[in-house]
This record gives sequence, C-alpha cells and structure tokens, in this order.
Amino acid sequence: MFEFNITSTNGRARMGVFSTPHGELQTPVFAPVGTQATVKTLTPEHLKGINASLVLSNTYHLYLRPGDELVRDMGGLHNFMQWPNPMLTDSGGFQVFSLSNIRKIDEDGVTFKSHIDGSMHRFTPERSIQIQENLGADIIMAFDECADPNDRAYIKKAMERTHRWAVRSLEAHRRSDQALFGIVQGGVDPNLRAQSAEFIASLPFPGIAIGGLSVGETKDEMHQTLDVVTPLLPENKPRYLMGVGTPEDLINGVLRGVDIFDCVLPTRLARHHAAFSSEGRLNLMNATFARDPRPIDESCDCYTCCTFTRAYIRHLIAAKEYLAGTLISIHNLRALIRLMEEIRVAVKDGSFTEKAPGLLAQWDNNAKRKTS
Amino acid sequence: MFEFNITSTNGRARMGVFSTPHGELQTPVFAPVGTQATVKTLTPEHLKGINASLVLSNTYHLYLRPGDELVRDMGGLHNFMQWPNPMLTDSGGFQVFSLSNIRKIDEDGVTFKSHIDGSMHRFTPERSIQIQENLGADIIMAFDECADPNDRAYIKKAMERTHRWAVRSLEAHRRSDQALFGIVQGGVDPNLRAQSAEFIASLPFPGIAIGGLSVGETKDEMHQTLDVVTPLLPENKPRYLMGVGTPEDLINGVLRGVDIFDCVLPTRLARHHAAFSSEGRLNLMNATFARDPRPIDESCDCYTCCTFTRAYIRHLIAAKEYLAGTLISIHNLRALIRLMEEIRVAVKDGSFTEKAPGLLAQWDNNAKRKTS
Repeated sequence: MFEFNITSTNGRARMGVFSTPHGELQTPVFAPVGTQATVKTLTPEHLKGINASLVLSNTYHLYLRPGDELVRDMGGLHNFMQWPNPMLTDSGGFQVFSLSNIRKIDEDGVTFKSHIDGSMHRFTPERSIQIQENLGADIIMAFDECADPNDRAYIKKAMERTHRWAVRSLEAHRRSDQALFGIVQGGVDPNLRAQSAEFIASLPFPGIAIGGLSVGETKDEMHQTLDVVTPLLPENKPRYLMGVGTPEDLINGVLRGVDIFDCVLPTRLARHHAAFSSEGRLNLMNATFARDPRPIDESCDCYTCCTFTRAYIRHLIAAKEYLAGTLISIHNLRALIRLMEEIRVAVKDGSFTEKAPGLLAQWDNNAKRKTS
Repeated sequence: MFEFNITSTNGRARMGVFSTPHGELQTPVFAPVGTQATVKTLTPEHLKGINASLVLSNTYHLYLRPGDELVRDMGGLHNFMQWPNPMLTDSGGFQVFSLSNIRKIDEDGVTFKSHIDGSMHRFTPERSIQIQENLGADIIMAFDECADPNDRAYIKKAMERTHRWAVRSLEAHRRSDQALFGIVQGGVDPNLRAQSAEFIASLPFPGIAIGGLSVGETKDEMHQTLDVVTPLLPENKPRYLMGVGTPEDLINGVLRGVDIFDCVLPTRLARHHAAFSSEGRLNLMNATFARDPRPIDESCDCYTCCTFTRAYIRHLIAAKEYLAGTLISIHNLRALIRLMEEIRVAVKDGSFTEKAPGLLAQWDNNAKRKTS
C-alpha cells in the first residue's frame, strides 16, 4: 500500500501512480476541496463525471461539525459522504491559524476558539492524528504551525516546532491504511526551507507536503521556495503543495516537481459567477452573456458545457438560482482536472517543459476577470 | 397531436396517455415546478433520474426575467433549460394576483407592478398567450382571474371575466404545437363552479384546468368543488388541478377524476429540511437524526435514499450546505412521482378506489411534521 511509482519524467516534472486503499491516484493530480464533507453544491456523481480522483476535506471543520467520532461511527469519511475514491484530510493546523479568532500556541499544541460558536478547543499533534484517524482519509497530514511568511523572526521558531510536531505526529499515528505526510515549513527563507525539507525528508513519511505557501508571499517567492525544496526531497515520495492554487500555480508547481495540489479556487469562483475559459476568466453575470448561445467554453467536455448556454447560466445567476453555482463549479473543477490530464499526457510524451510556456500564456488570461 | 387516450378507469379515476410534441405523458401525473426555468437546485439529469415527465414553469416569472423573447430566441424553454420532455406554463394570472403588489384589473386585462424591481407591466389574454407562445411549452393556459374564494360577491364577476378571457385566449392562440387549456373558476360556490365547468367544457380546448383551488379554501370545499366540476367535463380531455398539492390532495384528486397536478410543495419543503417518509414527515435538522444511519425512507428508490444517510443529510443542513436542499428535493419529488406511479398501477388493475383509504392513511402522517 502507498507505493508511489514514477512512470515518466520530463525535466523536474513527474508523472506517477500513488496506490491508496481507495484506488490508484494518477499524478500530477488536482484535488477538489470538500471542506465540510461535501464539495460545495456537487453530488459525488458530479465529481465522478468530471473525473475527479482525490478529494480533500478539512479536519478543523469536521472536528467541530459534525464531530470526528460521529464520522467514524458512520463508517468514516468515505462512507459518510459516499466518495469511493481516495481522500485526503489536512491536519487542522492551517484553519486553526486562519479561521479561529483566539489561539494560544505552546510547545504542546494550540488552544483555539471555534469560529462557529466561540467554544474553546485544543489541538495537539496527537489529537490531530487521532481526529484524522477517526475521519479515515487515505492521506493525512502531520500537525504543523503555519506562520505568517512576513514575520521572518517568528518563522524559524514555528518551523522548529513543526519539526518536533512532525516527530510526535509520526509516533502518534496507528492506522496502517493511512499515509501520513510530513509538512515542510520555513516561510520564504531559503535557508529555513532547505533545513525543513532536509529534516522532514529524513523522517519515514510516505509522502511530503509543502505548507505555508499561497498565504501572502509573491509568486516569485513561491517559485523560489519550490526551487529550494523539491530538489531536497526524495524522488520516490509524492509531493503535495498545500492549498495551491491557480491554473498557473499548477503548471509552475508541476514544472518544479510537485505531484498533488488542492484549492478552493474553482468552487469559490463558481459561487461568485466567475468561470475559467479559453477566452480568459468570465464573469457570467455580465449582461454581455444574456443572449450568448455558446457554452462557457467551447473546448470543454464537462456536463455544463455540453448542455447549457451562457445565456441560461446568466439567467440562473440573475434569478439567484443555486443551480448556477452547481453548473459553474462542475465546469471550473473540470477545467483544472482537464489541465492536469493534459499535463500528464505532456509529461509522458516528454513535451511538457516545452509546452509549459504556452500553457502558462493560455491560462494567464484566466488570472484576471474578463467581462466581454 | 394532443390526443388523450384513457387506457383504464377505476371509479372516477382514470389512467391515460396524453401525446405532446415532446413525448407522451402517462397520467395521472405530478409535475415538479421549475418556476424560473429550473426546478430549484436540480439539474435535468436529476429530474430524469426520478422519472419526472412533465415540468411546469411560470409565465409571470419568465416574462419578467429573463424575458419571454429572450427565451424564444434561445430556442424556447425546452432548449433554454434543456428539458427534453413535456412542459407546461401557466398563464401568469395567478402570480399577478399573488405576487405583485399593485394591480389594476379592468375588462381588457391587468396592470401590475413587478415584485423584482417595481416596474409596471400589463397582461391581457392576448399578451399572456403571446408570451406563452414565445416560451414554447407543450401545454399552455388561458389567462384567468383567480379571485379570493372567500370574497363570494366578487367571485361571480371574476368568473365571468375569466370566461370572456378564455374565448379571447383561444382566439389569440396560433401555435398548433401547443395545447391551450381553459380554466374553470368560480371559487367554492357549487353553482358558479358548475356554470364555469359547463362554459369552459363547451369551448374547443384540448384540456381543461381547474383553477382557484388550494388558495385558502378547506379540504372539504376542495373535494366538493371537484365533485361538482369533474362530472361536467368531457371524458376525453385531460383535467389539470392547478397548484395542488399535498400527497393527500393528489390521491383525492385522482379519486375525483383529475389527471394532472403540480405543486411547489416537495421542493419548498426540501429547502426547509422537511422530507416525506413512510414514517411521516421528517424534519431532518432534528438532533435525533445526527447519528441515524438509515436513508430518509427505507422504501424509497431515489438517488438520495440509495446513497446517503439521514446523519449525512442532517450534517449538510447544520453546516448550511446547499447540497442538503438538492438531496431532499430529489427525494421529495421522487416520493410524489412514485405515489403517482403506484396510483397508475392501481387504476390499471382496478384496485385504486379500494386502496385509496389505505394510501390516504399512509400519507396522512406526512401532513404534519414528525420530529422523532
């Protein structure tokens, strides 16, 4: 179990297969985010229809609601949300730092206030692992401290604590049907990142995550950090760039040897009526689309694009119908999953590094909103 | 086209086939309501999955947004919302009277204020038919005045105007691929209802609707009204009881010779977390269901019941995830469509009148909410 076989490489980009108890993951892979045990507005059938493989869910959210023991008693996360394919949970560390109002960090763990009802809770590495064992995802994360990348004085302290917490997470982990990944931290300081990569790589994790990016640093800082980190990681373990990202980030990440990505962007954009397209990002509420008989993207093979016009989706948005969010989510997720499929083919036939600048240019116009 | 063949009868109950340009309707039939060209939170695939056949949409809403000419230019309602099976639009009359704040009725038509932006609009029988021709449903309605059933002095005046508008609607109608139904009014006054039924039955409508019920009258009044009206209608034309209703109303309607029903109840209940079940109506937000591993209804064959637990749906509700509304809508609509399938089988084998009291008793506990 958890064998990772690299089947092709192209430059630093890799194509591989990661075996999990719920099936094989073709990498590089983009994971839709199902924060609260559901990818917002979509059924598992929709996810199968867009060829989603890995789905991420959030430990912090599920611990607070409905509770990890309830999920365990209902047969675990796969059974609870009826997702039969691989799943990943984060450690809760990031949400504790980004969502809860009050938190107190000490060597042992973090005390925080629920963003839902203000109740007080405590996570330690052991508690996070216990919760993730209850949830039962295939891939779980060591508990880490994600510090503000601009607070350079603090980053070192947080990184060293993350390392001690990584060891404790490993020691606490019992379930052999879950792959526990360690997390590299260190902000955007190349020396700290190198130190963290080497330390985490020295531990017997079956996979390694790169945390603390996409949290306020520049794109250049993200790329430079990846350039420091991935060469220090073992070739034979999957690498997961947490919470990243935009289509450009995925291309740049694969170019730098990343295998797994997740991000809320496609579904969040969908709820704000923005859609990826080969013409650039579209705001489908725009009046321009009121009588547009075309699909969101003529080159897309998703259910939404094979079925509905921009005019209809624009009407649903104007009429405040939730179906709009569903249809655009299907499309936006399919767009990124299709991008990853395209990247895998290119890595396999050795053309990815050559094609990457063109892909980046093609997706560049999706960074900004296009309204006509 | 629009041939109506009654294939079985049982007492006053009928089973038949109504042919439309978008396929044959097996009657008695329950039509989900897609007010704004979408059955709220569901894709057309969901509707096919629950064996929905006829879908209703609202002329008043679509006229205001996105506009009937836009729908026409996008290929009509079937194409716009991608529903390939039969559709029905109402005349807008009911919504003008129930939704718009200011209205002025005269012999020629109604001037009303949009509930969306306060703009002023005018419907006449000719305008309603023109709008419905633009929308392009298979079954369309004559423009009528739905008066308060308790204002008995006014009811007669409204009924007589409805009769004159019925004649004008017939004269205005041009499209031969649409069946224009006349509407019987007359409140709950048996004499007026009889007069209206005879008048509307005398006109060359291919089907006849019974309007002005489920608007504040008692159940007994509804049944008595049906007992007066349906015996006066021609046997060979389908009868549509507008905006009705509850499971009990469907059973009682079929018993009295009704063929077509529509109601927002199943989807509206779903958005308020209430589900039909053989145990009675369930409020799925109730804490009782937090760890309930059963489907909403063990006897149900819908996607929701074949896939998800009450515990999961309760979690989605608590977490304010829209998927809850989708899943409960699928179930509630399927429950009524399945009831109609059961009724058709019983009419065919001659057991419906005998089974009806049992069916009514079985569904009676769905009238009230059951919380444990």
